[in-house]
Amino acid sequence: MTQSLTTAMAAAGNPVQMLRNSKIGMYVYPVVAPEFSNWRAEQEAWRKTAVLFDQSHHMDEVIVEGPQATEFLSHHGINSFSNFELNRAKHYVPVTPNGHVIGDHIIFREREDKYILVGRAPTSNWLMFAAAYGNWNVRLRYDPRSPSRPEGERVLREHYRFQIQGPDAPKIFEKMNGGPVPDIKFFHVDWINVGSKRVQALRHGMSGAPGLEIWGPYKDKDYIHSTILQAARDAGVDLVQCGSRAYSTNTLESGWIPSPLPGIYTGGGMLADYRDWLGADSYEASGAIGGSFVSDNIEDYYVNPFELGYGFYIGWKKDDFIGKEALTKMKDAPTNRKKVTFEWNRDDVLKVIASAFEQGTPYKWIDFPQPNYASSSADMVMQGDKMVGMSMFNGYSFNERCVLSLGVVDQSVQVNDVLTLKWGEPETTGKTSTEAHKQTEIRVRVAETPYAAEARENYADSWRTKGS
Amino acid sequence: MTQSLTTAMAAAGNPVQMLRNSKIGMYVYPVVAPEFSNWRAEQEAWRKTAVLFDQSHHMDEVIVEGPQATEFLSHHGINSFSNFELNRAKHYVPVTPNGHVIGDHIIFREREDKYILVGRAPTSNWLMFAAAYGNWNVRLRYDPRSPSRPEGERVLREHYRFQIQGPDAPKIFEKMNGGPVPDIKFFHVDWINVGSKRVQALRHGMSGAPGLEIWGPYKDKDYIHSTILQAARDAGVDLVQCGSRAYSTNTLESGWIPSPLPGIYTGGGMLADYRDWLGADSYEASGAIGGSFVSDNIEDYYVNPFELGYGFYIGWKKDDFIGKEALTKMKDAPTNRKKVTFEWNRDDVLKVIASAFEQGTPYKWIDFPQPNYASSSADMVMQGDKMVGMSMFNGYSFNERCVLSLGVVDQSVQVNDVLTLKWGEPETTGKTSTEAHKQTEIRVRVAETPYAAEARENYADSWRTKGS
Repeated sequence: MTQSLTTAMAAAGNPVQMLRNSKIGMYVYPVVAPEFSNWRAEQEAWRKTAVLFDQSHHMDEVIVEGPQATEFLSHHGINSFSNFELNRAKHYVPVTPNGHVIGDHIIFREREDKYILVGRAPTSNWLMFAAAYGNWNVRLRYDPRSPSRPEGERVLREHYRFQIQGPDAPKIFEKMNGGPVPDIKFFHVDWINVGSKRVQALRHGMSGAPGLEIWGPYKDKDYIHSTILQAARDAGVDLVQCGSRAYSTNTLESGWIPSPLPGIYTGGGMLADYRDWLGADSYEASGAIGGSFVSDNIEDYYVNPFELGYGFYIGWKKDDFIGKEALTKMKDAPTNRKKVTFEWNRDDVLKVIASAFEQGTPYKWIDFPQPNYASSSADMVMQGDKMVGMSMFNGYSFNERCVLSLGVVDQSVQVNDVLTLKWGEPETTGKTSTEAHKQTEIRVRVAETPYAAEARENYADSWRTKGS
Repeated sequence: MTQSLTTAMAAAGNPVQMLRNSKIGMYVYPVVAPEFSNWRAEQEAWRKTAVLFDQSHHMDEVIVEGPQATEFLSHHGINSFSNFELNRAKHYVPVTPNGHVIGDHIIFREREDKYILVGRAPTSNWLMFAAAYGNWNVRLRYDPRSPSRPEGERVLREHYRFQIQGPDAPKIFEKMNGGPVPDIKFFHVDWINVGSKRVQALRHGMSGAPGLEIWGPYKDKDYIHSTILQAARDAGVDLVQCGSRAYSTNTLESGWIPSPLPGIYTGGGMLADYRDWLGADSYEASGAIGGSFVSDNIEDYYVNPFELGYGFYIGWKKDDFIGKEALTKMKDAPTNRKKVTFEWNRDDVLKVIASAFEQGTPYKWIDFPQPNYASSSADMVMQGDKMVGMSMFNGYSFNERCVLSLGVVDQSVQVNDVLTLKWGEPETTGKTSTEAHKQTEIRVRVAETPYAAEARENYADSWRTKGS
């Protein structure tokens, strides 16, 4: 019998129940050591000195080549491609025909007819399906993320991928390159030297600090890694290697939500065909939803690109692309939520931790620095009895000295509003990533995204400095 | 130039400063995934259902064979060998000529002339040196622990090693074995079936719960692992795989201190020769001491076997063994400390955690469930202004709902005494495993080891149930 997302959903009855009871465990940042020094120092490094992220393992890679590569990608993403020259990168966002976000990738244009895409599985799967579903003259090559628990087996990828970030990063680039690096514009790509190798470098950066992401054949990984570390020593920079525990928390300061639930569990036509195509072991069928928000309607977990702040990517001038009609209707809809950062109340967080020092059923443990316990998180954010938002990605920032989360709120919610996040699940699920726990409430202050700069501005008003 | 522990110590001036400023990072439990489900549930499993430990990677293995194998090992360990029949195991403890503990291994007698030893590096190194130093007719084979951060490279060992523990473990053994398992006495070895393979099984057990440790050729690991998991399913037992984050905390409930500092940094003769033999990259030269206790005299970090509760192992009837003379003098010395469990005050632990939610320099972060940040920990335990003990291994137990540590205290200290543990280092060191922090005090209640049973008896008096 065929095992597809469709059959898995039919067997489960409701996709929400299926995903809330997934036994896949937490979403792992694999292969890279949990800590190289310690996660506090590793977080501090991206703000104060320089940090080295090894991004070689946690993301899928899809190479799209062929005469119709541009047309194909343009048709399946919301982004404008009119300004997509060679050696540029974009934040590529596909949506469903109904306008719901499927996921996102970073996309690099390497040649006129060749793109490389990097990110979570939902976008990879959608593109592989799309290529098979339409009549496209494109060639796709898929290199999935590394196994979550290799347990000593060797792991190989197509490419290594390193990112160097932080205020002292430029000194390292110059040493690596053997001279000043070209002045690469944000999200543009150029070639630099790393020792004796020419490598592609994407200008990146978080929280205003400069950064470069470099990649190349995986067999070069050790050489590149050693050369980077030596360049840092030569430059007198304290370059801190970031482990997998700290890694995913960097997004809390920069404001990107890595894990929206792909909006593909409902809808007919292409979406129904997609669910038949997706295997029962796919991310979409086997991944987990965690959090206090439980709805019978899986569409309540979907987000649209306006809500994530991606509205300005949309290539409205494109003749057509999947989701264009739906997005046209959604644009400026008063029901669209907006992306914010939630700053968790310190006393309420400590109350949760304190419960792990009492007998009986505790509150859901907040693991440091990364308390997410599913592929996608959905925690209810309440104003009184009314749900006014959804918290979607959590973590503790040693830089900000607080737990932060990213999510979406109704338009009525304003910065500095104090809302209540329901923490913990209302019932025991099949998830292996949660201990038995009871639910509680955590006050959250609404802050802008990205948080880092905003925090400085609102510092005096922050309850972090005043207590609640 | 020769690079030995001797030259490293000379370069550093003082071995305490050398080890306190080691840059090796925290002591890692390598290769095994940090969590399979979540560390709370994994800890709970060894108390409530059954847990599977993958011990294949974190310990050295030394095989000692040859006509003089017994004589060699008996001469270099304190243990009696008179009752060491085939298919038995012992907790093997070598000491220096001065009677200080070097480390410990589990030792299995496989043949009349073949032993296999498993444990941390100090005992492996000492035995390898001893075989080279004396005139012994023994063959040693050394398989060091797996690399701390393999980063996707393949890791191979001589043997896989699994341990299954917990109240429901016997049901799994019977399924694995295809019938009742032989009645193996504690620390005895017998052969059982695991599916189609015959494997050696050591009867083990923590906190009174039955357990078996099994091992065999590393190439069989996947087969054995799968067969164990299937046996658990067939037996209807919820066997929880334990990841590396929870693993090391099991000792807090059972009372074994894994990490005494080997007493080899001082002393002449054989010890001076040993320091010349040990490489500058050895555990002894590159490992780290962490904690609040700073003494100029490294001997203040040493322990003797009486203090760790190993006095009853000593084979006094043996003609001679290394350290016998010193131990004879140490026996019943009033200066010998005794091993205890420290139960950390909940409010003081929460105070430390709360400091990570304030600006400025926080207290040393207590990482959950394993806050150790060095190869050997040494925290001062005070009664008023007087140091009356040393805390040597820390961790949070979800089963006991508190932070516990193991260590030694003066004879004057009694169970239920409330002492003060100095938490955090007095000065910034070169260690990469610590963030900048300030020191504070944590009240600790003295409890017996092993803690698990003791906790039940003293439950009503515990401040964990009453608050402080």
